Amino acid sequence: DIAELDHDRFARRGYPEAVYCEGKTAEQAGVIAAAVGERGARTLFTRADAGHVEAILAALPDAAHDATARLVAWPPDPPEPTGGTVLVVAAGTSDLPVAREALLVARHLGRTADLVVDVGIAGLHRILSRLDQLRAARAIVVVAGMDGALPGVVAGLVAAPVIAVPTSVGYGAAFEGLAPLLTMLNSCAPGVAVVNIDNGYGAGHMAAQIAAPVPG
Amino acid sequence: DIAELDHDRFARRGYPEAVYCEGKTAEQAGVIAAAVGERGARTLFTRADAGHVEAILAALPDAAHDATARLVAWPPDPPEPTGGTVLVVAAGTSDLPVAREALLVARHLGRTADLVVDVGIAGLHRILSRLDQLRAARAIVVVAGMDGALPGVVAGLVAAPVIAVPTSVGYGAAFEGLAPLLTMLNSCAPGVAVVNIDNGYGAGHMAAQIAAPVPG
Amino acid sequence: DIAELDHDRFARRGYPEAVYCEGKTAEQAGVIAAAVGERGARTLFTRADAGHVEAILAALPDAAHDATARLVAWPPDPPEPTGGTVLVVAAGTSDLPVAREALLVARHLGRTADLVVDVGIAGLHRILSRLDQLRAARAIVVVAGMDGALPGVVAGLVAAPVIAVPTSVGYGAAFEGLAPLLTMLNSCAPGVAVVNIDNGYGAGHMAAQIAAPVPG
Amino acid sequence: DIAELDHDRFARRGYPEAVYCEGKTAEQAGVIAAAVGERGARTLFTRADAGHVEAILAALPDAAHDATARLVAWPPDPPEPTGGTVLVVAAGTSDLPVAREALLVARHLGRTADLVVDVGIAGLHRILSRLDQLRAARAIVVVAGMDGALPGVVAGLVAAPVIAVPTSVGYGAAFEGLAPLLTMLNSCAPGVAVVNIDNGYGAGHMAAQIAAPVPG
Amino acid sequence: DIAELDHDRFARRGYPEAVYCEGKTAEQAGVIAAAVGERGARTLFTRADAGHVEAILAALPDAAHDATARLVAWPPDPPEPTGGTVLVVAAGTSDLPVAREALLVARHLGRTADLVVDVGIAGLHRILSRLDQLRAARAIVVVAGMDGALPGVVAGLVAAPVIAVPTSVGYGAAFEGLAPLLTMLNSCAPGVAVVNIDNGYGAGHMAAQIAAPVPG
Amino acid sequence: DIAELDHDRFARRGYPEAVYCEGKTAEQAGVIAAAVGERGARTLFTRADAGHVEAILAALPDAAHDATARLVAWPPDPPEPTGGTVLVVAAGTSDLPVAREALLVARHLGRTADLVVDVGIAGLHRILSRLDQLRAARAIVVVAGMDGALPGVVAGLVAAPVIAVPTSVGYGAAFEGLAPLLTMLNSCAPGVAVVNIDNGYGAGHMAAQIAAPVPG
Amino acid sequence: DIAELDHDRFARRGYPEAVYCEGKTAEQAGVIAAAVGERGARTLFTRADAGHVEAILAALPDAAHDATARLVAWPPDPPEPTGGTVLVVAAGTSDLPVAREALLVARHLGRTADLVVDVGIAGLHRILSRLDQLRAARAIVVVAGMDGALPGVVAGLVAAPVIAVPTSVGYGAAFEGLAPLLTMLNSCAPGVAVVNIDNGYGAGHMAAQIAAPVPG
Amino acid sequence: DIAELDHDRFARRGYPEAVYCEGKTAEQAGVIAAAVGERGARTLFTRADAGHVEAILAALPDAAHDATARLVAWPPDPPEPTGGTVLVVAAGTSDLPVAREALLVARHLGRTADLVVDVGIAGLHRILSRLDQLRAARAIVVVAGMDGALPGVVAGLVAAPVIAVPTSVGYGAAFEGLAPLLTMLNSCAPGVAVVNIDNGYGAGHMAAQIAAPVPG
Ligand SMILES: Nc1ncnc2c1ncn2[C@@H]1O[C@H](COP(=O)(O)O)[C@@H](O)[C@H]1O
Ligand SMILES: Nc1ncnc2c1ncn2[C@@H]1O[C@H](COP(=O)(O)O)[C@@H](O)[C@H]1O
Ligand SMILES: Nc1ncnc2c1ncn2[C@@H]1O[C@H](COP(=O)(O)O)[C@@H](O)[C@H]1O
Ligand SMILES: Nc1ncnc2c1ncn2[C@@H]1O[C@H](COP(=O)(O)O)[C@@H](O)[C@H]1O
Ligand SMILES: [Mg+2]
Ligand SMILES: [Mg+2]
Ligand SMILES: [Mg+2]
Ligand SMILES: [Mg+2]
Ligand SMILES: [Mg+2]
Ligand SMILES: [Mg+2]
Ligand SMILES: [Mg+2]
Ligand SMILES: [Mg+2]
Repeated sequence: DIAELDHDRFARRGYPEAVYCEGKTAEQAGVIAAAVGERGARTLFTRADAGHVEAILAALPDAAHDATARLVAWPPDPPEPTGGTVLVVAAGTSDLPVAREALLVARHLGRTADLVVDVGIAGLHRILSRLDQLRAARAIVVVAGMDGALPGVVAGLVAAPVIAVPTSVGYGAAFEGLAPLLTMLNSCAPGVAVVNIDNGYGAGHMAAQIAAPVPG
Repeated sequence: DIAELDHDRFARRGYPEAVYCEGKTAEQAGVIAAAVGERGARTLFTRADAGHVEAILAALPDAAHDATARLVAWPPDPPEPTGGTVLVVAAGTSDLPVAREALLVARHLGRTADLVVDVGIAGLHRILSRLDQLRAARAIVVVAGMDGALPGVVAGLVAAPVIAVPTSVGYGAAFEGLAPLLTMLNSCAPGVAVVNIDNGYGAGHMAAQIAAPVPG
Repeated sequence: DIAELDHDRFARRGYPEAVYCEGKTAEQAGVIAAAVGERGARTLFTRADAGHVEAILAALPDAAHDATARLVAWPPDPPEPTGGTVLVVAAGTSDLPVAREALLVARHLGRTADLVVDVGIAGLHRILSRLDQLRAARAIVVVAGMDGALPGVVAGLVAAPVIAVPTSVGYGAAFEGLAPLLTMLNSCAPGVAVVNIDNGYGAGHMAAQIAAPVPG
Repeated sequence: DIAELDHDRFARRGYPEAVYCEGKTAEQAGVIAAAVGERGARTLFTRADAGHVEAILAALPDAAHDATARLVAWPPDPPEPTGGTVLVVAAGTSDLPVAREALLVARHLGRTADLVVDVGIAGLHRILSRLDQLRAARAIVVVAGMDGALPGVVAGLVAAPVIAVPTSVGYGAAFEGLAPLLTMLNSCAPGVAVVNIDNGYGAGHMAAQIAAPVPG
Repeated sequence: DIAELDHDRFARRGYPEAVYCEGKTAEQAGVIAAAVGERGARTLFTRADAGHVEAILAALPDAAHDATARLVAWPPDPPEPTGGTVLVVAAGTSDLPVAREALLVARHLGRTADLVVDVGIAGLHRILSRLDQLRAARAIVVVAGMDGALPGVVAGLVAAPVIAVPTSVGYGAAFEGLAPLLTMLNSCAPGVAVVNIDNGYGAGHMAAQIAAPVPG
Repeated sequence: DIAELDHDRFARRGYPEAVYCEGKTAEQAGVIAAAVGERGARTLFTRADAGHVEAILAALPDAAHDATARLVAWPPDPPEPTGGTVLVVAAGTSDLPVAREALLVARHLGRTADLVVDVGIAGLHRILSRLDQLRAARAIVVVAGMDGALPGVVAGLVAAPVIAVPTSVGYGAAFEGLAPLLTMLNSCAPGVAVVNIDNGYGAGHMAAQIAAPVPG
Repeated sequence: DIAELDHDRFARRGYPEAVYCEGKTAEQAGVIAAAVGERGARTLFTRADAGHVEAILAALPDAAHDATARLVAWPPDPPEPTGGTVLVVAAGTSDLPVAREALLVARHLGRTADLVVDVGIAGLHRILSRLDQLRAARAIVVVAGMDGALPGVVAGLVAAPVIAVPTSVGYGAAFEGLAPLLTMLNSCAPGVAVVNIDNGYGAGHMAAQIAAPVPG
Repeated sequence: DIAELDHDRFARRGYPEAVYCEGKTAEQAGVIAAAVGERGARTLFTRADAGHVEAILAALPDAAHDATARLVAWPPDPPEPTGGTVLVVAAGTSDLPVAREALLVARHLGRTADLVVDVGIAGLHRILSRLDQLRAARAIVVVAGMDGALPGVVAGLVAAPVIAVPTSVGYGAAFEGLAPLLTMLNSCAPGVAVVNIDNGYGAGHMAAQIAAPVPG
């Protein structure tokens, strides 16, 4: 009676349920993990802090935990990849936790996924030297804080859709991610759509859907 | 010297250049349209008011103009459609101009595209009765003002990615589209990414990319 | 001289005084609790942290404390319920503290009250399966963070008024509850009115007033 | 195909459909009005400007139009009133259009409703002299711009729930109604819930639901 | 070379220098206090935390420290009062620290000053019972959080100017004092001017200036 | 029944009633003016546009109208001045309408009042050359848009209290007066209190209260 | 007495006075222009609409008016250029009015200045093809709306300082220039400083100061 | 693979790479410092907390660390200064950390730089007594919190460009630096451009570029 998992989701949508741990007690996370184990359904636990992780691993000892991404996945191994490739690009090193969350989510949802880090626009040659890799992807996630300018630059160079993720990294007038969020929504290059601040999960999920194998 | 069109865009990205008319004088729109005609490259003119339209049609008399969508397309006929289907869904009648812009852009970028209007969550049976149509689409654009709740509801029902477009429709605390924008960014159903307020062009473009034929 | 309780409130309005503990020292809470005990008037202490609780229980040892709801009630037992039923609905598990505060306040103000948790719109079947329970209530409190979309969906299904409570749960662009607050104020289904972010007390109070027995 | 009226609403909820005219063309309003006439279902048209009104009256010549409230109602006469009384209170003369919309909506939804105007807190004796009228109402709508302080003052004096409506009236730092909206959400007197800025329709609807006859 | 006190201020303006401690290290506060002692000029230290206080008292052992107000004054005794009376009114107990800072500042700047606490508008009889005290003051400081409605109510009842101080007390949509700040700026009763959130110092200073003895 | 003038105000507070015309129809302004004439009570009409003025003058033909200040006063002549002097200072020529409103209101409320225009901080010598005039005033109103820096500079030079009025003059990031409003609230010179954006009436009223003759 | 021009400015700072016309009446602009003519001091009139221009030209018939930049300069010819070159770069055609204002101001303040238009990041090759021109400038002004990403890209490529000017061009979530303003303040490439939205004057002035001839 | 330093920056722009430590783990800072040491390229580490510093010094033991500025520089000694002088001015003692960061960055980028502290506008004589020092600088950085008024006052007195840095110092309505940021963007004195809140690094960098020796 503290949670009513959406067990129908995989049948309905083809993607596993996910449990957002922030705002839940460790105890609640443990109760939910136990229910997941009983049911046997693939599940992701996002934004898990140390307390959540301990409680989840107590119930699902073989779950895979990634500390940088704050993600717990069960079962621990992603399914065999299908569909196109997802490429995750991070503007700076500080964007790594969010980028890694997107990367792992895309893999656990069944895609091949790669990661490129620290190729922000202050040194443009870094992203320009990766045009081939960018153009080989079916969906690109671009993670950036501060000015949030990288997704627009990438979108101007490729045919694939770009999912932009603003991060809460930056000086005061970044307003905890508001500045890059607005930049991305206002991209003057078309082909950019935006998810919530620091929401690597949402970006990885969306990219996995875009790169899904085409039916028939 | 007032404009430097991105003529390389089609070669680089596979999608035509677009000219955002708001903030340009009618005269400038006419000069650009003449350059387009000379070059012979497929081009869309978005947010065109009466003055822009007149100047564009003077230079490109056979261009197609849609008054509701405020769009001018040249050449007038979309290419033969390829790839998957794009479905555009509008929560209310007031969202029609933006929805129609998305619809036409998706078609002019080479997709089959359909439109469903006035199926907001106040009367939930309206969207629930269209599950089959929703599930047949490869990309779904959902346009909504006020509470902006429809994209999340749709995303919870389908496997395809949802591109959400907030509109500037609503009472004062909608703050010209800010309220639905935030709702969409915070969708508790994954599978939603967001474009700018009233940006039907961006949504149609993104959906066309998602539903593009898979190479190979 | 640090507080001047509104002892006249019950006579004037029929509902007990409440003491908002946040921003008060534990010592002040204790002084007020002692005054309450002397006067013998039913009182609620909201947003009480561990220090407040200790000081209040020292003065009113038989008071009832609910840790999840951060509420202390004295006398400990609610009055015999009258009027209609209040139903409290929480979109997610993370909304439980606020929902529980609303539930207990409604009971301590004299109503029958029930609670339903984790029925957000990402899995719509969860709320749709409870239509009978929703339609039996005279007032419904809906608590939600993130997109805040649930109150509008519920309001579209029932005749009773919906009191919506935004919570501060969610990613960055939820802006500590601003996003669901705006969603709820912009509900496209009429029959929704909104209280402050995380204000379970205010929602429970309002619902108790709405479901009060009709005089005469 | 431009609108899909929620004809099921009255059966489902007991209240008529409403058409929000802002953002619709006059022509669209006329098409909808014709559909309403054919169907024969009680309907309200809100926020109707001169163009909308003309088109609606062409289709529904006996509809009732109130210019101050910008409301068109069909059929023109409200139903026989049932349930408790709704009292609408406006802080200033400038709040009259919104207050009058609330008043008429409450009547067309089946309640007895009265109006009191220009009793803001700058001259407190004005509202204090009406305590009897305030205490006789089952639901009170309080409309105020600027500081938005009146709803809290009223809520502190009565047992009935107060629905607060901020208006966009005031100097620059009222920010088109944001200031009174926040005041009302932060009312230190419990018993206040808030609807959108200038949303007299929503307030009147909510008040009508609260004052509805209790079944059984 | 870390500070250049405005020693000329008393000569120029008739009021002592004040040192805002927040954002300074304890060590810097100590260095400044030593300079003050050497110079022998009356000085107030505002927003002093435990570290600041310790360092200041080491340099000025006879300084007066008020923990609730977070104020250190040197010399410890206020001057003999002149001019009119300042009355400080706090809406709730939680507003006490700010109200007390205003009270003490007014006294250290040479006025007679009194304090009334917990007379918010939720129980209007509390403020109405103090009309005589309100009308005897030459300047009134009103401190309030949440809805910030009290200053406007007071201003409507008296001839003296009201200095309003918003506090950062309240639920989420108080936005750390923004809500009462806007309320106060929008007061529909004239005779209210506003200082910064939680700025008891500024309010006490302003009130002391207003109530200063009239020259000649 | 459209207005309930606060006729008791002069008796209660010593200052006349004022009618805020914005948001009222010309017809309503005329009805109110007629009531004023009948009652014979001194009244100010603020923010009056051409339509309001015509209607007011029809009812009160001898009223005094100032087009720059948008003010109508009746009776046309201010009372004989008492108390101290009010000085109104405008940072730029564009602030003149607001400054003039403050000037006239102070006079109609019974004070001697003077005006200094275009002495902003970009050319500091302009304000520094007026130190004597500044120091002779009992209350100073400083009106400024853009950076809003002038009130703090003035407050640092004088003993009298400064009432600061932000205006909606400036480039985009002035956000219609928000920027100078915040500057003024954050004045690092104490002795500044702030009224609403463009609210010359409120500033003139407050200054008149401060400079009122001291009783006894 | 409506204006007090800062005639001392040229002596003090080496740059001419400027008159911001917005918010002034045409009549006031004319009075000021007459004073300018009498005094014979070089002056710029910014943000001049048709009415202002007419009044200024009546007083200063040989003044130079540029309609796109909304600028009037007197005397009409800029001084002989000294110092380094200023380069003004506009991201899109819609940014032309602001860019042109910066260009002309830099020239009238004594610099050589050039303009490049429509080289936004959506087609990156456009700006990359101008590296030589960028690197020859001593100060670069970059004007951009929407995502505001161009200044950061330019700053990453050159040694000269970049003055960034956000424009109010773009879809709803550009919030009248707020989005590019924040982007520019958050530039992840150092070497960017920002002026107000649409403030071409400020940018041209700043660039002229930076590129001024080095004394000695 | 966690970082891709912009080693090309010095060649391309003439200024060293900088590493923003906030949001990076200490371990990452150490890895980057080791790479810097290997490469041998001048590098600044900004916003370094104790953990970062320890890790950086482990890899670069002779690096220079300034605790107030939170800066680590390697190699420890700045290059021989060239070009003009940079003057850094701080309004208050609380602004010292940011001012000192600007000072050191300007020196490590090759300029002569000086610092003046606590000369805010509340005591105007303090800044006016330094006119000679101000007028000798080729670029001036002005750091201020609260009202942020000092940069505009300075700009009105000198010919050199002013780089303004808002700080997050102040009462609630300073909104963590938003208030001085807006003040500075709205400076009514031209010659002010603004960097991010608390961004001493950006200001020092920009000033160093402005005061760079003129080529040729
Ligand atoms: N003021 C209002 N507040 C909330 N919902 C409204 C309001 N006015 C109309 N509506 C609802 O919004 C829907 C109208 O949107 P539309 O389909 O565009 O006409 C109807 O279902 C109405 O019930
Ligand atoms: N959540 C709440 N929302 C609105 N008012 C509240 C809330 N909690 C307490 N109050 C009221 O605020 C007042 C408490 O403020 P205080 O006097 O500081 O204890 C009481 O009169 C309560 O009725
Ligand atoms: N709705 C839109 N959203 C994003 N970019 C757009 C939109 N419309 C046009 N654009 C792009 O903005 C650029 C037009 O800006 P401009 O150079 O001023 O015409 C083109 O490169 C378009 O691809
Ligand atoms: N609460 C306050 N509001 C406004 N100014 C203040 C406040 N507290 C101190 N000050 C002023 O701010 C200056 C202190 O800043 P600082 O130089 O950093 O100590 C002094 O000149 C005080 O007069
Ligand atoms: Mg990097
Ligand atoms: Mg509809
Ligand atoms: Mg859940
Ligand atoms: Mg009134
Ligand atoms: Mg209280
Ligand atoms: Mg001027
Ligand atoms: Mg372009
Ligand atoms: Mg100081």
